Amino acid sequence: MIKSALQQARSKYSPKLPKALEGGVKTVFGAATQSVSDQEAIAKLFPNTYGLPKLTFEASSEATSGTPINGGVILSGGQAPGGHNVIAGLFDGLKKIHPDSRLYGFLMGPDGLVQHNYIELTADIIDEYRNTGGFDIIGSGRTKLEETAQFDKGLEILKKLDIRALVIIGGDDSNTNAAVLAEYYKSIGAPVQVIGCPKTIDGDLKNEQIETSFGFDTATKVYAEVIGNIQRDCNSARKYWHFIKLMGRSASHIALECALQVQPNVAIISEEVEAKNLTLDDVVTYIAEVVAARAAKGENFGTVLIPEGLIEFIPAFKALIAELNDYLAHHEAEFRAVPADEQRAYVAEHLSAANSALYASLPATVARQLTLDRDPHGNVQVSLIETEKLLAEMVATKLAAWKEEGRFTGKFSPLTHFFGYEGRCAMPSNFDADYCYALGRTAACLIASGVTGYMSSVQNLTAPATEWIAGGIPTTMMMNMERRHGEMKPVIQKALVDLQGKPFAYFVANRAEWAKDTCFIYPGPIQFYGEPELCDQPSRTLSLEQAK
Amino acid sequence: MIKSALQQARSKYSPKLPKALEGGVKTVFGAATQSVSDQEAIAKLFPNTYGLPKLTFEASSEATSGTPINGGVILSGGQAPGGHNVIAGLFDGLKKIHPDSRLYGFLMGPDGLVQHNYIELTADIIDEYRNTGGFDIIGSGRTKLEETAQFDKGLEILKKLDIRALVIIGGDDSNTNAAVLAEYYKSIGAPVQVIGCPKTIDGDLKNEQIETSFGFDTATKVYAEVIGNIQRDCNSARKYWHFIKLMGRSASHIALECALQVQPNVAIISEEVEAKNLTLDDVVTYIAEVVAARAAKGENFGTVLIPEGLIEFIPAFKALIAELNDYLAHHEAEFRAVPADEQRAYVAEHLSAANSALYASLPATVARQLTLDRDPHGNVQVSLIETEKLLAEMVATKLAAWKEEGRFTGKFSPLTHFFGYEGRCAMPSNFDADYCYALGRTAACLIASGVTGYMSSVQNLTAPATEWIAGGIPTTMMMNMERRHGEMKPVIQKALVDLQGKPFAYFVANRAEWAKDTCFIYPGPIQFYGEPELCDQPSRTLSLEQAK
Repeated sequence: MIKSALQQARSKYSPKLPKALEGGVKTVFGAATQSVSDQEAIAKLFPNTYGLPKLTFEASSEATSGTPINGGVILSGGQAPGGHNVIAGLFDGLKKIHPDSRLYGFLMGPDGLVQHNYIELTADIIDEYRNTGGFDIIGSGRTKLEETAQFDKGLEILKKLDIRALVIIGGDDSNTNAAVLAEYYKSIGAPVQVIGCPKTIDGDLKNEQIETSFGFDTATKVYAEVIGNIQRDCNSARKYWHFIKLMGRSASHIALECALQVQPNVAIISEEVEAKNLTLDDVVTYIAEVVAARAAKGENFGTVLIPEGLIEFIPAFKALIAELNDYLAHHEAEFRAVPADEQRAYVAEHLSAANSALYASLPATVARQLTLDRDPHGNVQVSLIETEKLLAEMVATKLAAWKEEGRFTGKFSPLTHFFGYEGRCAMPSNFDADYCYALGRTAACLIASGVTGYMSSVQNLTAPATEWIAGGIPTTMMMNMERRHGEMKPVIQKALVDLQGKPFAYFVANRAEWAKDTCFIYPGPIQFYGEPELCDQPSRTLSLEQAK
Repeated sequence: MIKSALQQARSKYSPKLPKALEGGVKTVFGAATQSVSDQEAIAKLFPNTYGLPKLTFEASSEATSGTPINGGVILSGGQAPGGHNVIAGLFDGLKKIHPDSRLYGFLMGPDGLVQHNYIELTADIIDEYRNTGGFDIIGSGRTKLEETAQFDKGLEILKKLDIRALVIIGGDDSNTNAAVLAEYYKSIGAPVQVIGCPKTIDGDLKNEQIETSFGFDTATKVYAEVIGNIQRDCNSARKYWHFIKLMGRSASHIALECALQVQPNVAIISEEVEAKNLTLDDVVTYIAEVVAARAAKGENFGTVLIPEGLIEFIPAFKALIAELNDYLAHHEAEFRAVPADEQRAYVAEHLSAANSALYASLPATVARQLTLDRDPHGNVQVSLIETEKLLAEMVATKLAAWKEEGRFTGKFSPLTHFFGYEGRCAMPSNFDADYCYALGRTAACLIASGVTGYMSSVQNLTAPATEWIAGGIPTTMMMNMERRHGEMKPVIQKALVDLQGKPFAYFVANRAEWAKDTCFIYPGPIQFYGEPELCDQPSRTLSLEQAK
């Protein structure tokens, strides 16, 4: 296997470790906890794992040792940089407890547990993947662990392999399911601990306990690198407006973080669009106004950042998508039989008046996107909708009208981009390499301390890594009750962009200047070697959130 | 102005310099030269600047000094990483000749010379741009310097500013024009030297004298970084085929270099498609066969690299575009009046039978691309044609047919990407930072030696920078006669991918294995600090070309 020079160099990197985890470790139990809301309902649903104490790991003069422990690990959901280091940290942590400990990896996500597909992760394998991006060590998948039958099937293989603890690396849903699994195993007296790890580039798994999910740092740095490069091009050629859509699902954390890193002319934040109840036309008008104001100064160029989930936050669009999802689900075959050229007219005809009007106002390409292949649940796949083209075309239409009125006198040449897959499997930044390795080592400490229904937690993340605080948070502590598919369910609260928070406030305080002037910042590529200011900085979001 | 940590760090970087340029420099004149072909015709067109000797600069114990020289500089055409360092090198070189030398920058390309738009580039300004990407120091533009009236208008401002030498940083066309300008000024006895510098990310300005154009190294490393990240994602999710189009105009150097860096499953090289006279269906079949072979092993994922200019190299497509260009140029208004829904039928009706059939076989989105806004010459803008989507859709159609026949049993989910603007203005790699600075310093030496009609040349580029060889090549030496717009013109030969060359041979020798197996390499982001193997490596193309 041929490896790049950087792959070779990174394989030798030793992640920086919190001081407390270096030598002997002792577990400090805190006070009992409560869920963030709906305490009674959640306590009832988790009789065995509710209200547990928070844990902190501190340095101990006594050497940590014990009997061999077999662990299992699952990667769940979308890729995020650093997943391999969580597994490496877990492996090293288990081996530190006893050299005869073993780690098994279940293949292609939770399905591997249910289907009994696994490999033993030996030192050879682990060493091949240290500090690398991707989830390819064991693969990932989107099967949801929700059914008792799945839990029981999983238990068979866990018992067979004598696995005492299962670590599930995933986002909010996967960690919710991990908590349910922990409760179930505990309730039936199955001797398997379940520990979660907070993963997602989207940044929407965070709260008072989890400062950030892993992968967000690296992914946003990759996006900011290429956006910065585009901005420098934009500022050199002085003739294009770049509309750049960014992954991130519903939440706009990625768009906001990138905006803080690169200072674009425009960044749309879905949560604000929803809070202000803006229409699509409001958003288009806002962008067109920035374009027109810059054109008046002779600057016919700029950048616009657009979060992937935007259109879901525009009430009228949400209604259109909901009706489309519903209609197409019930008329799939009929729709497929309509000739391509007539599909648009067919759809318009079968929608309610309001939705039909919005649908008719959309550019042809976007109208087509809305009726394309949908996900396994029959829903429009938001990431396939080319919102960046939608906005660029609608801004062009509006500016053309303004030109007639003499309200716009410039030129408008838009180009569009979508970044997502470029960042999900990037080599982890030093921050994510360190953070993930610490999360894995912490997971091993949680296993050693015998608990279940906890998430691995590493805090104080804007301090140097040696001062990070490792511990465990009972997963039920982060839960509330939410309606899902018509039923009230206990789930980890998803964190959208906090419109009262410091990162958004900083953005709001500066965006008028960024819109008018050209204040572009060029972050450049992630650097792994050099001064800490260059190589080890956390995200701007985290820095602002934790600023005194 | 807020700068990123890397911007701040890079501003302190001192480019590595060829030993010969460090202290005193002496000019060594070589033998008289000939153009690569059409010697007689070119000698006749360049009576004053044909047949000049090659120059080499060597270290001299005598200090280089002289009288103050005012220089002018122009950035011409598309952005390429390192342009700012050429200017910084030129500035430092002129100041080394005499501290009272001055450098003027003409704004927004050659137009700045003609329109007398310029700024003086002072030390403050230069220091702000050292080792940065972009052309924003003075902007660039695509105006062609071809007319005597432009030359005369330019001469007015050159005289007024007492500019003794003009450095034009551009691609093959701009350097051709620089040679014509040099000849003209010499012929009328105007005391202005004209020196060229080889710029373009496309890599198509290279020959026996110019080992590589600047910017190619950085741009391809940025593309290879994000393609590598996508490959890791691809290999982790195991469910997508990524179709990735890469900038580079006609030549496939960028696609080939990226293929050498990342080892994708498929890379299409336009020059090979043309040489083998392949049809669009041949290309689609080849990709579909790779997809089917991998699917048979259970691997429903992979990557396909596509050069931007591909469809221009497919004879049938070339014919379609030519007829479309011609037809639409003559029926612009008529076409615009056709309702959007009917445009496709309208176009199909007005094309010749063969072209109409090909047009009808294209996916709707691509058919639409072909009739979209065209460039100022009325031509289809190749970079706007979504070849990546065209191929993905056509491969899907073919695989669906094969599925019916039982010849394909897998799944095929394509995703598409286009990378270009992400790399043109990236921070220059150490290689490009060093190479460009050396080109600028060499240009200053050429000015000091009093010559005109030369290109700045730095050779021996796979050796450490200190051993690079600086000199000057008479531009006429790289010329031949070619038909342009119906007339025979002297031009610098454009370098397409050499199908007999070592880089292509390496690719051909390995591509069957890369197609079948998963041999992805993950280059990661450009590193600026660390061991030379990590930070200073030239492109794979250059390394293979110069391999002993």
